[in-house]
Amino acid sequence: MHTPDLSNIKITDPLFGRYADMVAEKLLPYQWEILNDRVPGVEKSYCVANFRIAAGRADGRHRGAVFCDTDAYKWLETVAYCIENGSGKAYEPVADELIDLIAEAQQPDGYLNTYFTVNHPEQKWSNLAEGHELYGAGHLIEAAVAYHRATGKEKILQVACRFADLICSLFGSGADKCGGYPGHQEIELALMKLSRATGEARYAETARHFLSVRGTQPNYLLEELAARGEDRIFPEFADYDDKYAQSHLPPVRQTTAEGHAVRAMYMYSAMADAALAFRDDELKAACCALWENITRKRMYLTGGIGSSGHLERFTTDYDLPNDRMYCESCASVGLMMFGQRMAMLTGDASYYDVVERALCNTVLAGIAADGDRYFYVNPLEVWPANCLPGTSLAHVKPVRQPWFACACCPPNIARTLASIGQYIYAQDEKSIFIHQFISSSLKAELKGIGIRIALDSSLLPDGLVRLRVETDRPGSFTVRIRIPSYLENPVFEFEGRRISPMIENGYAVLAVSHAGVQTLTVRGVVRPKWVAADVNVRADAGRVALVYGPYVYCLEETDNGALLPNLYVAPNAAVEVGPPESQLPGALPVLRFPGARLESGVENGLYGTPAFRFTEQPLKAVPYGLWCNREPGEMLVWLKARL
Amino acid sequence: MHTPDLSNIKITDPLFGRYADMVAEKLLPYQWEILNDRVPGVEKSYCVANFRIAAGRADGRHRGAVFCDTDAYKWLETVAYCIENGSGKAYEPVADELIDLIAEAQQPDGYLNTYFTVNHPEQKWSNLAEGHELYGAGHLIEAAVAYHRATGKEKILQVACRFADLICSLFGSGADKCGGYPGHQEIELALMKLSRATGEARYAETARHFLSVRGTQPNYLLEELAARGEDRIFPEFADYDDKYAQSHLPPVRQTTAEGHAVRAMYMYSAMADAALAFRDDELKAACCALWENITRKRMYLTGGIGSSGHLERFTTDYDLPNDRMYCESCASVGLMMFGQRMAMLTGDASYYDVVERALCNTVLAGIAADGDRYFYVNPLEVWPANCLPGTSLAHVKPVRQPWFACACCPPNIARTLASIGQYIYAQDEKSIFIHQFISSSLKAELKGIGIRIALDSSLLPDGLVRLRVETDRPGSFTVRIRIPSYLENPVFEFEGRRISPMIENGYAVLAVSHAGVQTLTVRGVVRPKWVAADVNVRADAGRVALVYGPYVYCLEETDNGALLPNLYVAPNAAVEVGPPESQLPGALPVLRFPGARLESGVENGLYGTPAFRFTEQPLKAVPYGLWCNREPGEMLVWLKARL
Repeated sequence: MHTPDLSNIKITDPLFGRYADMVAEKLLPYQWEILNDRVPGVEKSYCVANFRIAAGRADGRHRGAVFCDTDAYKWLETVAYCIENGSGKAYEPVADELIDLIAEAQQPDGYLNTYFTVNHPEQKWSNLAEGHELYGAGHLIEAAVAYHRATGKEKILQVACRFADLICSLFGSGADKCGGYPGHQEIELALMKLSRATGEARYAETARHFLSVRGTQPNYLLEELAARGEDRIFPEFADYDDKYAQSHLPPVRQTTAEGHAVRAMYMYSAMADAALAFRDDELKAACCALWENITRKRMYLTGGIGSSGHLERFTTDYDLPNDRMYCESCASVGLMMFGQRMAMLTGDASYYDVVERALCNTVLAGIAADGDRYFYVNPLEVWPANCLPGTSLAHVKPVRQPWFACACCPPNIARTLASIGQYIYAQDEKSIFIHQFISSSLKAELKGIGIRIALDSSLLPDGLVRLRVETDRPGSFTVRIRIPSYLENPVFEFEGRRISPMIENGYAVLAVSHAGVQTLTVRGVVRPKWVAADVNVRADAGRVALVYGPYVYCLEETDNGALLPNLYVAPNAAVEVGPPESQLPGALPVLRFPGARLESGVENGLYGTPAFRFTEQPLKAVPYGLWCNREPGEMLVWLKARL
Repeated sequence: MHTPDLSNIKITDPLFGRYADMVAEKLLPYQWEILNDRVPGVEKSYCVANFRIAAGRADGRHRGAVFCDTDAYKWLETVAYCIENGSGKAYEPVADELIDLIAEAQQPDGYLNTYFTVNHPEQKWSNLAEGHELYGAGHLIEAAVAYHRATGKEKILQVACRFADLICSLFGSGADKCGGYPGHQEIELALMKLSRATGEARYAETARHFLSVRGTQPNYLLEELAARGEDRIFPEFADYDDKYAQSHLPPVRQTTAEGHAVRAMYMYSAMADAALAFRDDELKAACCALWENITRKRMYLTGGIGSSGHLERFTTDYDLPNDRMYCESCASVGLMMFGQRMAMLTGDASYYDVVERALCNTVLAGIAADGDRYFYVNPLEVWPANCLPGTSLAHVKPVRQPWFACACCPPNIARTLASIGQYIYAQDEKSIFIHQFISSSLKAELKGIGIRIALDSSLLPDGLVRLRVETDRPGSFTVRIRIPSYLENPVFEFEGRRISPMIENGYAVLAVSHAGVQTLTVRGVVRPKWVAADVNVRADAGRVALVYGPYVYCLEETDNGALLPNLYVAPNAAVEVGPPESQLPGALPVLRFPGARLESGVENGLYGTPAFRFTEQPLKAVPYGLWCNREPGEMLVWLKARL
């Protein structure tokens, strides 16, 4: 199974089309200005400046984050997707100039990292735990593969291959090789991608090597850090442990999601890639176990992951606090990547339920409706007054920010939205797969048959998906449509006649054989639903949340007043589907339901005799992915149930 | 008003007597071994070793915490109280040896700090924000005053005075003086104490100077830190702001409790001392405003303070999360100190309600019933499985610890328990004051009358306090007994006859004029009570807690099973007062009441259709101050109310 070229997909969806278009319209120019330190009031990136110094075009020292080269790579990768999807052609000359600069910054042996080249050439590869050289290489490779695919131009791919060749020559199990592995995974999935793009097996072999040497004893990263002593790039690494970067066990033996959530997702994605490429059933079993652990015990309703604000990491089963966690936007992008690969590895459509949950909630929440402000941390409960600097909640921002010193999330969201088509469609030698119900069109070729698909979804509120399949000649293939878990009683019509397609691995399988236009509709019921959490989730005990299709809904202060934690709802309260909020994009319905507000808890004083008094209050919920696009204020997903 | 010598007080209370006795029996020898690095498995202190190096008795570099001299001073202060209260005479020779060592470590000009003397003599007084020199001086002075009072020996007092003289000569408002002030307050209250002990006004003047220069612009500490750049003793000071050490405003203009809670309490205590000594009404008004802000908006039911785990600090009004805060044992010791001074400053007994709340709950919880394990952080809800290193809850320990690298809390608890008599009794020129109902006896002299008081309290469960007053001659004075807020309908009997004493500033005023033995009883009703929190306390919305007199009660896993957050109670549930738990000290009753357990929230999966099912469950609560003295496990104070 592979994903079609983005050039063959057009997004027409009112919500995702808007966000996808914003990438080329707003994010690319905005981020380019930031990479060049030309945006007043935004923390300086130094990204392009560092490349200029490393390339010998300017003098000076590397400044900014040790990993900030990757901002340029992710920008380039996003440009590539925008060129491919037809929105970003204007950036190609700028991208080519950036590529020239990157190429000039590459060292004769293929090494490419501005921090070490400029500031610490003697320390190359000596601080894998913190140095991010392999992480940077991974993002370079991803950008290179994307740009080559979008433009056919070789230059950046050659740069990437030279660096990858150097890495393949340096790292390995031989006595003459470095036995280390990345402190931040990313190179593994990138090398798998490069191997697929170039046909070179050695890249995949090195990825596999990194996955097999990781977590062996003695622990390379711990020994390296111990040898460095107090000489740290990241002061918070005083708390470093072997779980942080998933080096506590060899990946194939890992069964619980541990440590830094983004590192984990990138590694699990590479594990799934490797399990598929090498038909490695043990690795596949580890991937399945990790997926189960995440989605059954360590994931928020919104598809957010990372329960600890400190070190942005997983904690323990069922520990899902709603206001202090991390739930980094990048981690949910990573969860989408892992889910997509699990679906490819297993052929099971149900992984896309989680991909969709992460996309429609945490990833969407990560970016403002206007495209120029971002959340890094995505809690399910926000009280702006206690999001104070220098406190336990310093990482939680009550409004989206213009940029971040560690600028991973905005470009990660950008590359995901620009390539959203890859999550909608896939194909193999005999089928077209439809994974997401984002209105769009696809041009494909299968068995020599030219195929055009128009997908028109109005799942919310109609429970309806219309599919128009046009083929240029007769010939049999199947269209496999994922049946999402929230679609009740789906009924299928083919050419206006009700049919009962085979359901296989979560897909409704529709055989197409005639030439010309054929129409298919899937009609079911999608209702707003109250959900509760497993009884072991202490933070959600006695609470309910409202979901509608893939969308989690939330209450905002602007609609419901302040002190949202004092609101109660009957766990079976009737929910009215209302017209969309005009200030919010995408025409998603607003949900209304009766509730009650706890008006007082005590007669007087801070603590005293209980005097609970309720007043009825109609409540209004909006999609979590769109919160904080109106008046800033409190937000809450899990409401107290009046039991 | 002053507190009597501890030598005139004997504690007979079954709870506090036990804890007070443990100080000399267990804490002093245990801590002495730790200070000398002789306890295997406990992080090294280096405290005595550093003094030996600074004294020239050994070679080497200073190791351990920058402020670890204070561990010796607090040990010495505790020895002094134990000598004074009659339990610690055996330590006097050891203390005298330590004093010799401290005196040898003092520099010719009076300077005394082993970190700077040994490692960075060139940096003395140049890092007030982090260096803790003035903080250390403060603890030296407190120890010296106490030891001099206990033994009459001058040596350590002379050492302290020499250092204090140096400080008075260096710091001030003149152009030839340093305009700085301590990064960690303590010197101010210590200099006030030294001034009272020696009659030297200049010490109080310097204390007052520190209080008036603090928070002026430009901010001394911020400028000093900025000048040092990245050269930090404490990496977490990357998050330093002017509120952290209460330097955001001059103290007299502060109205909200901000920043590091211990620093705040020590400063507010000094402000109250100075307001009294200098009859400074503006400073008194600031103290009252700060007290109100803490006790009405920023204090836990347990007398804990410091809502942010990170940087151990106050956050914002009504932000009182139950599981992630700091509530440092030392901060509640500081709150006791501040409350005691406010009562002295205003003559109002009600401040002692808060002192008692802090003592009976957070301070008591800080030490194990066996005296050899300690809590630093005192949450109101603990789930051991998520108290993980390297996460947001790394500071929360689910069981008491043998010691801490930053070892402030155990000795602070020790000195408080060893001098607990100062919180029970006070006297002025015409009255004996009784502030706490801790069974004990007092010898005093007033207007030439020799007085013996025996206080026998059985407030829990009987609501009864018996007082035996014996005088050696006729003469009129008053005994003023604080009427605690939780004692309902108090009835007074004097010599077996009911009387109606005047109630003044929260005290029942009893005139005594005859010679010989006179008995007084106060009998009222003390009932277990459910309390709720102000409606603005989001963390406690819809919850109730159980208090009984000054004691907050909590549920422990060992009595009620795991998953305590799933327990519900009717907000007016009948509470049965049961016999004490044999494994817990002090013979405090156990409380039992009917409750219900949420057995399930969802049919299956992590999230799904609500399926709330309750089963009735009788519940059992024990005093919070004694939690975790049996089987370790979950603990919870605020129970969900079934509304």
